[in-house]
Amino acid sequence: MKQTILVTGGTGFIGSHTTVELQQAGYDVVIVDNLSNSNAEVVDGIEQITGIRPAFEQVDCCDKQALEAVFAKYKNINGIIHFAASKAVGESVEKPLLYYRNNTVSLLNLLELMPVYGVKGFIFSSSCTVYGQPSKENLPVTEDAPIQEACSPYGNTKQINEEIIRDYIHSGVNIKSVILRYFNPIGAHPSALIGELPNGVPNNLIPFVTQTAMGIRNELKIFGNDYDTPDGTCIRDYIYVVDLAKAHVKAMQRVLDMDTEPIEYFNVGTGRGVSTYEVVDKFEKATGVKVNWSYAARREGDIEKVWANPDKANNVLGWKAESELEEALSTAWKWQLKLREKGVM
Amino acid sequence: MKQTILVTGGTGFIGSHTTVELQQAGYDVVIVDNLSNSNAEVVDGIEQITGIRPAFEQVDCCDKQALEAVFAKYKNINGIIHFAASKAVGESVEKPLLYYRNNTVSLLNLLELMPVYGVKGFIFSSSCTVYGQPSKENLPVTEDAPIQEACSPYGNTKQINEEIIRDYIHSGVNIKSVILRYFNPIGAHPSALIGELPNGVPNNLIPFVTQTAMGIRNELKIFGNDYDTPDGTCIRDYIYVVDLAKAHVKAMQRVLDMDTEPIEYFNVGTGRGVSTYEVVDKFEKATGVKVNWSYAARREGDIEKVWANPDKANNVLGWKAESELEEALSTAWKWQLKLREKGVM
Repeated sequence: MKQTILVTGGTGFIGSHTTVELQQAGYDVVIVDNLSNSNAEVVDGIEQITGIRPAFEQVDCCDKQALEAVFAKYKNINGIIHFAASKAVGESVEKPLLYYRNNTVSLLNLLELMPVYGVKGFIFSSSCTVYGQPSKENLPVTEDAPIQEACSPYGNTKQINEEIIRDYIHSGVNIKSVILRYFNPIGAHPSALIGELPNGVPNNLIPFVTQTAMGIRNELKIFGNDYDTPDGTCIRDYIYVVDLAKAHVKAMQRVLDMDTEPIEYFNVGTGRGVSTYEVVDKFEKATGVKVNWSYAARREGDIEKVWANPDKANNVLGWKAESELEEALSTAWKWQLKLREKGVM
Repeated sequence: MKQTILVTGGTGFIGSHTTVELQQAGYDVVIVDNLSNSNAEVVDGIEQITGIRPAFEQVDCCDKQALEAVFAKYKNINGIIHFAASKAVGESVEKPLLYYRNNTVSLLNLLELMPVYGVKGFIFSSSCTVYGQPSKENLPVTEDAPIQEACSPYGNTKQINEEIIRDYIHSGVNIKSVILRYFNPIGAHPSALIGELPNGVPNNLIPFVTQTAMGIRNELKIFGNDYDTPDGTCIRDYIYVVDLAKAHVKAMQRVLDMDTEPIEYFNVGTGRGVSTYEVVDKFEKATGVKVNWSYAARREGDIEKVWANPDKANNVLGWKAESELEEALSTAWKWQLKLREKGVM
């Protein structure tokens, strides 16, 4: 019998790609999303890719009554992947209460409902932001690296959510959880039927690159070329979103099927540190499109360098990033072209 | 014109004593309490002491609609002192979601309502637990000592609440806040009309001492006499609850009247580290009553020693702990006798 997974934020960037991979791995998916930062057409895109339409409920996870109705309607939910969250760092500084409320209450509602409806597995979207700027000895960063004070209310909600899940599991409830700490997710589905849809000016590098290449933005600024890195620009670990989505399938199999620890943490990255300059350079080479860019002063709050040691995910989860950076960048460009074609931007 | 202060948890131990001191300093007080861990007779006790009956609303601060009705009813609230919180360390380990929800949502509700109703000052009940076990160089502990990972969900909610308030103030809202980090509050009002009313087996030393002296408990265990302290027992900073209450009046005057920083932190302690053994010994000497006690093994999670450097509160807040330990212990005993007389226990 098929297992059913509730995917909160399932019409978002990572949520939609994960829904595709879950369906292709044989799971039934119920998407819950309030569409605050995505749209319902994503469900069509998922259906076009997989041939299966996921169930979709437009519900805000902060609304416990509405959320409970979803649990009651789909009686046999086996696991939850919780993507739904407010995620803009800058906005979180301006509206911290909104972030603390949305990201805390939605998690509490889900965790409270799990035992009531016999849901056993919980996968949480965390972030490498919990590591802050790791010290030199801690690069590439493992799951045991110290957690550092968050740089923004957004980052703090990720830490707090990890703590809430940890304390809940430690209280002895019959639930298992995997915390996935993502590095920098990029790219789009190779079909270009789903991808990233940033609201307004993108916060992330790749959408800014593709929008600049497209002429939507005049110029890309690379913030800082005097960092202590080989070319002076910041270093990140860019993980292809389809690879990242597959890590969720592995994580779900692990929490539902195996005799494992009740809570486990995995870095989801490639293990490859790539500079901002390299990203732009590889994008131009992979697509043949020029990007108008220049160096600007460092931006406050930016981490100099961080990349993953993904050994634990490789060995324990049996998951590995498969894609090359060029491939991921090409899918991002293909998606940007599709958005133009559809008249979205 | 009198200023009005909303005191959440105002029928609780510290809340009731603070209400008395606020009234005696000329403030009007509105108490909000859900009576989950206190009773409405405390309002009578406050009235007997001060001759003024504080307004009382039985409302759970997690119920935003009911809370907003209080703000709307008492139109001119100038400041809030937020005591209402779930506070049992052991229970927080067993029911972490209850603690994260109660202590987070109640704070968010209050902070969200403040600008809507023009409330300017916010005093928050924090705890020396945020310092964990300070290193030797950091004893006595100042407000600049590092914040350490919380030992319980309860302790974590105090840290998270401090962070939420900090981020809210930093977002530029027109509100000022003082965070008071209490050491170990003890004693009762000298009138014995209000005091501490622990539910079931007391978590704190002094109620356990007075209940053992009364014969309600068979024996007091002192957990550990092999700590690195002069007599081998743990060291704490016991602050008389009436002194502590007065610190809130000073803090409220500061956030409402003065041209000060938008957020300030103060340790509220005596500066005097006292061992568990000394407490029992001084209790017996101050009251002439014997306590049946013995040493037992260390208890997991206990901090070895912590006491305050209260210089900042002394100098900046203009507040100082006035009472001797014996005096505080005598009031605790007088209160215990009163509870017996009233047939409460």
